[in-house]
Amino acid sequence: MSEQNGTAEQQEREQALVEQVVASFETAKDPRLKQLTQALTRHLHAFLREVRPTEAEWASAIEFLTAAGHITDDKRQEFILLSDVLGASMQTIAINNEACANATEATVLGPFFVEGSPGIPLGGDISFGAAGQPCWVEGTVTGTDGEPVPGARIEVWEADEDGFYDVQYDDDRMAARGHLVADERGHYRFWAITPTPYPIPHDGPVGALLAAVGRSPMRASHLHFDVRADGKRTLITHIFVRGDELLTSDAVFGVKDSLIHDFVEHPAATPTPDGRDVAGRAWSSVRFDIVLAPAQTGVCE
Amino acid sequence: MSEQNGTAEQQEREQALVEQVVASFETAKDPRLKQLTQALTRHLHAFLREVRPTEAEWASAIEFLTAAGHITDDKRQEFILLSDVLGASMQTIAINNEACANATEATVLGPFFVEGSPGIPLGGDISFGAAGQPCWVEGTVTGTDGEPVPGARIEVWEADEDGFYDVQYDDDRMAARGHLVADERGHYRFWAITPTPYPIPHDGPVGALLAAVGRSPMRASHLHFDVRADGKRTLITHIFVRGDELLTSDAVFGVKDSLIHDFVEHPAATPTPDGRDVAGRAWSSVRFDIVLAPAQTGVCE
Ligand SMILES: [Fe+2]
Ligand SMILES: [Fe+2]
Repeated sequence: MSEQNGTAEQQEREQALVEQVVASFETAKDPRLKQLTQALTRHLHAFLREVRPTEAEWASAIEFLTAAGHITDDKRQEFILLSDVLGASMQTIAINNEACANATEATVLGPFFVEGSPGIPLGGDISFGAAGQPCWVEGTVTGTDGEPVPGARIEVWEADEDGFYDVQYDDDRMAARGHLVADERGHYRFWAITPTPYPIPHDGPVGALLAAVGRSPMRASHLHFDVRADGKRTLITHIFVRGDELLTSDAVFGVKDSLIHDFVEHPAATPTPDGRDVAGRAWSSVRFDIVLAPAQTGVCE
Repeated sequence: MSEQNGTAEQQEREQALVEQVVASFETAKDPRLKQLTQALTRHLHAFLREVRPTEAEWASAIEFLTAAGHITDDKRQEFILLSDVLGASMQTIAINNEACANATEATVLGPFFVEGSPGIPLGGDISFGAAGQPCWVEGTVTGTDGEPVPGARIEVWEADEDGFYDVQYDDDRMAARGHLVADERGHYRFWAITPTPYPIPHDGPVGALLAAVGRSPMRASHLHFDVRADGKRTLITHIFVRGDELLTSDAVFGVKDSLIHDFVEHPAATPTPDGRDVAGRAWSSVRFDIVLAPAQTGVCE
C-alpha cells in the first residue's frame, strides 16, 4: 500500500465520493432523517478513510453483522449487545440524561427489565425466593432542589446469586424484582439480595469479539433502579458494590463513580433494622439517596 | 433538550466515556484489531455526540440492523446492500485501488459475479442467448507505461434487457457472461448486449431506507469487467453508457466520469465490424481502452 492517505488525486477521489453520498440524502423530506443519514455518511467514511480497510477486512465486518443478525431472535438481541460493548448504549443514555446539578446519574436499562413486577409495601422483600444474601436497601428520593419527592415510584430488579435473572429460567418464576412507593417524606426501604456479578451473553459474535481483544464479558455486581415521579425526569440506573473488582472492567461501561455504594456486611445474628428474622444468616445493607432532575428540559442550564 | 453539546460537565462525561471504551481495547494482542476497534469507537461516539439520538432513534437503528440480519440468507445480503447505498463499498474499493497515473478506475464488484463463466474466442459472443440489443465491444489493454498487455484475461458480465442476471432466474442458465484473452498486441473485441438499468433488491430494510429519503434503487446501465494480467493490479470495474439519465443517481455510487463511454447506436442493416449477421437488427458499439496499474505497490508515487 502507498502512504497513509495516498496522493492528492486519491484524496480528491475519496472526498468527492463522500460529498456525493451526502448529497444523495438531500432529497429526504424529513429533516431529522436527512441529518442522521448525512452525519452517518460523514462519520462512516471518516472511519474508512482513517483505517483504510482491506477488502477482506470489510468483508469480515459484513460477516460479523450477518452473524449478529442470525443469532438475534425474540430472546437474544446481539445488536444491542454490540451497542453495549462499544459503549454506544451508555453514550446514548448519557446524551439523553444530561448532567443536571446533583441529579443521580443514569445508566443502561439492560435486557432484563420486564413489565408487571409485583408491588411491595415499604420494608417489603423483592427477592420472592431468589437465592442470595439478604440485603437491606434504604434511602430518600429528593429533587435537585433538595425537596423530598413523596410518592416516587421505585422499581428494582437484579440477578440472583447464581448470576441469573428470573426470566432466564425456563419456569415462569418472577423473583428478585418488584416496585414500591416512597413515603410522604420521600423515604424508601426494602429487602433485596446482595448483588453478584454475571456475564453478558458471550457465546455469539459479540462474545467472540470480546475474546479476540482480551475483554471480559462480566458485568460488575449491580441492582437496577427505575425511579419516576410527576414533574421529574425518569431515572434509570444501577447501584454498584464498592470493592467489586469488576468495577473497572464492566462489559457495558455502566459504572459511574457516583453510583458505587458501600454495601455493609453484617455478621450472622446481627439484629436487622426492621427486626426481620433472616434465619441467623449474615446480611448486608446499603444506603442510596436518589436525586431526580426536573422533567422540564433546560432548567439546569 | 439543552444546547447542542450540553454543559462542560456533560461534555466531560461524554468524553470520559469515549476514552474508557477506547482504553478497553488496549488489551487486544493483534495491533490491527486494536486499531480498528479503537477507531470504530472514536468515530461511532463522534457520530452519536453530534446527532444526539433519542433513545427511540437508537432503538430504531437496532431494529433496522435486526431486520437486515433477518432478511439476509445465502442468496440475499442486506448488509452488503447497506454498505453499497452508504457508499462504503465504493469507498473501500477506492482505498484499495489507489489512483495510479492514468490507470482505469475501479468500481464495485456487485453480487452477480460467478465463477466458471464460459471462455470465448476474440470476436466471440458472451450473450449466450440473453435478451438484448447486440453490442460490439473493443479496445486495448495497456500498462500505465503505454505498453500493450498481451494475453490479459478479460471477464465480462451484465444483466439482460429485462434487468436480470442469469443467476436471478430459477433455471440454471449461464448467459451474458464470459471471458476472453487479449491478443499479442493487447487488443480485444467481443459481442455483448447493450447494457440496461436494473434496481438493487429494494423489498427489504435498505429499500425502505432509500424510499424514506427519496432515493432511487436503480443502478445506471453498465457492463462489468474483471481484467487481470501478470505483473498488473487486477482491475474490477464497469463501463457506463453516456447519456443514461441514471448516471447521476446510481444507487451504489459506482459511476466515475472516466468510466462513462459512448455507446454508438447503429441503425438496422448497418454492416457489423466483423461481418456478423445480426438478423437485420439495430446494434451498438463501444470502445473501452483499459489501462492497468502495476501490481507492485508504491510504483505510482
Ligand atoms: Fe443487570
Ligand atoms: Fe451489475
